[in-house]
Amino acid sequence: MNIYQKRRESVRVWMKREGVALAVIEDFEAKRDPALRWLSGHPMDALLFLSANGGSLLVPWDVILAEKIADADKIVPFTAFDRDTAAAIEGAIRHFGVEKGRPIELPSATTYPAFCRLREKLPGHDLLCREDGLRDMLNAGRAVKDAAEIAVYRQVSAITDELIGQVEQGVKIGKLKTETDVALFIEREARLRGCEGTGFETLCAGPERSFGIHCFPAYTNGPFATTGFSILDFGLVYQGYTSDVTMTFAREPLSARQEEMFLLVLEAAAIGIAAVRPGVRGSDVGKTVNAFFTSRGVSMPHGLGHGIGLEAHEAPSLVAKDDNKWILQPGMIVTVEPGLYEKGAGGCRLENDVLVTENGNEVLTSSRIVRL
Amino acid sequence: MNIYQKRRESVRVWMKREGVALAVIEDFEAKRDPALRWLSGHPMDALLFLSANGGSLLVPWDVILAEKIADADKIVPFTAFDRDTAAAIEGAIRHFGVEKGRPIELPSATTYPAFCRLREKLPGHDLLCREDGLRDMLNAGRAVKDAAEIAVYRQVSAITDELIGQVEQGVKIGKLKTETDVALFIEREARLRGCEGTGFETLCAGPERSFGIHCFPAYTNGPFATTGFSILDFGLVYQGYTSDVTMTFAREPLSARQEEMFLLVLEAAAIGIAAVRPGVRGSDVGKTVNAFFTSRGVSMPHGLGHGIGLEAHEAPSLVAKDDNKWILQPGMIVTVEPGLYEKGAGGCRLENDVLVTENGNEVLTSSRIVRL
Repeated sequence: MNIYQKRRESVRVWMKREGVALAVIEDFEAKRDPALRWLSGHPMDALLFLSANGGSLLVPWDVILAEKIADADKIVPFTAFDRDTAAAIEGAIRHFGVEKGRPIELPSATTYPAFCRLREKLPGHDLLCREDGLRDMLNAGRAVKDAAEIAVYRQVSAITDELIGQVEQGVKIGKLKTETDVALFIEREARLRGCEGTGFETLCAGPERSFGIHCFPAYTNGPFATTGFSILDFGLVYQGYTSDVTMTFAREPLSARQEEMFLLVLEAAAIGIAAVRPGVRGSDVGKTVNAFFTSRGVSMPHGLGHGIGLEAHEAPSLVAKDDNKWILQPGMIVTVEPGLYEKGAGGCRLENDVLVTENGNEVLTSSRIVRL
Repeated sequence: MNIYQKRRESVRVWMKREGVALAVIEDFEAKRDPALRWLSGHPMDALLFLSANGGSLLVPWDVILAEKIADADKIVPFTAFDRDTAAAIEGAIRHFGVEKGRPIELPSATTYPAFCRLREKLPGHDLLCREDGLRDMLNAGRAVKDAAEIAVYRQVSAITDELIGQVEQGVKIGKLKTETDVALFIEREARLRGCEGTGFETLCAGPERSFGIHCFPAYTNGPFATTGFSILDFGLVYQGYTSDVTMTFAREPLSARQEEMFLLVLEAAAIGIAAVRPGVRGSDVGKTVNAFFTSRGVSMPHGLGHGIGLEAHEAPSLVAKDDNKWILQPGMIVTVEPGLYEKGAGGCRLENDVLVTENGNEVLTSSRIVRL
């Protein structure tokens, strides 16, 4: 069994236990779901149907691409169903001989109007749409990386570290002067090293714009790494998996407030990383850092971190909320990214990727705050 | 009244007529809704609440950004509601004094599980979640561009045309040799000319990969514009609005089949553009081109075109389906993008942006199939 077959088999066992006859995974422009790729190798724009009796049916928009790279028992082009999701589900019901009354699990991202429409179009079928069903099962499966995935992370982390060093050097020698210089340097170098691309639009903000948690626009032709704080947040995608790091460039002279923010973020990053270990609740890691910031009279307007994988934001979460139930386990990879933002001083954030190990953690990347 | 106030006033009038007391617009990573920007100028990551009695409340993730650029009667940071959508809706209900039983319209993209959760959390409130309500009203409003938006389109089209010319030239003189060369040339030149960025990840596929409707990965370090068909599909974003064009580079010698595909796509583009005029159904434009392709024994695996604006794909659609009810009106801007794809021959697509005018149409961009 290849890895996709193994993963689908784990879903099939889960479906049998849960009494789900047919599972629907959907990835289209309106709503992406990397579980499609995790289960079939097909990267995007398709429906994937899994039967509790075994067997998978992939319905891709681009059938030529699917035939080249996807792993599924059967491939039928979406055009065969007039590019209509309900028609494709009906086709899967026929293909697998799913009887009326047997539960069919729809994607948890199905909108309320779409769900009502499907209920009308598929009378007699028991349609499930929930977050604590297949979604949570797949998220939990994707959250713990296996040996092959961790090996990919060692590769993408090494390339990421290489570019961290080259960007630092390029800024120092004055080769990378603008936000666009930096962002496009990363885009080019990533592909030269065999990366698929970047995991999200590179966020590159000079001192005028670094106050933004996620600056807008993502990068401009404006100056980078001039006096004050500049932020660079990027991720590289290698074999589908994305890294996610943030560097801050702090060009002197800094104000007293900026010096303070710099030290607070450095300390918060160390506290956050130290808190990452198996058995700990993700929310508690976030709470530890929030408590530190609160004790120093500041606050962070975003979560401390999140899982990374086929998606730039996936399970587990380090957000300091009680409804964040994730417990860290060996094989999970999370970002730790404390940041502080002020209108005058700008923003300072430090983000690295951390693998949870049996005994604690291993920091995979070496992002840093660069003093200039 | 500025443009955002005018647009919100048109929504308020609609709400009064429809009996909706409170409208919720939501744009976050999981589901983007450019109506947020259309109504407030705030680009992303926020909730916007509109009351039928007038008044708007913006709840942004990044309050510093909002205070700089957003237009709303009141701004309250999302953190004030613990970054929880239900809590923010409750806050808006209090803020506007919405009485129980009065209809509250939620985003049509609300998932079924989220809708059920909100119904539990907001007992006594009449929650609406539908596609033929506010969503269709906003889509229809956004589909017809006003004079200022058309002026922006003249600018972004001119920049797009300039880059079309420069890419053609760069390929011809051998300066742009790889997919990455071409894609990053566009990224850089766009920002040098004041663009926010690109409207979607630039799709750049040399002859080995042009068979893909949307190639994957978007661009690689592989060769571009070598013998056969290469496709370049890109859009530039200026003041929020995106263009969307596709060039094909056809390097000789072409096979007999490729020569045939080239002529068919050229003819289909002319037929498609000629069919764009006010009063015509979008689906009929698509059907006209599909009928042409069918008469020649080929078929197109995607829709003929779509509206463009704050989103790369918006209303009206030119998809040849009976449930596509859009009727073209002056001020609408659509893409016309016939394409043919074959495993051996590769893909050939030609896409331009077309403004519907009082008397017919005006082609805004000058993308082309470049013979090399």
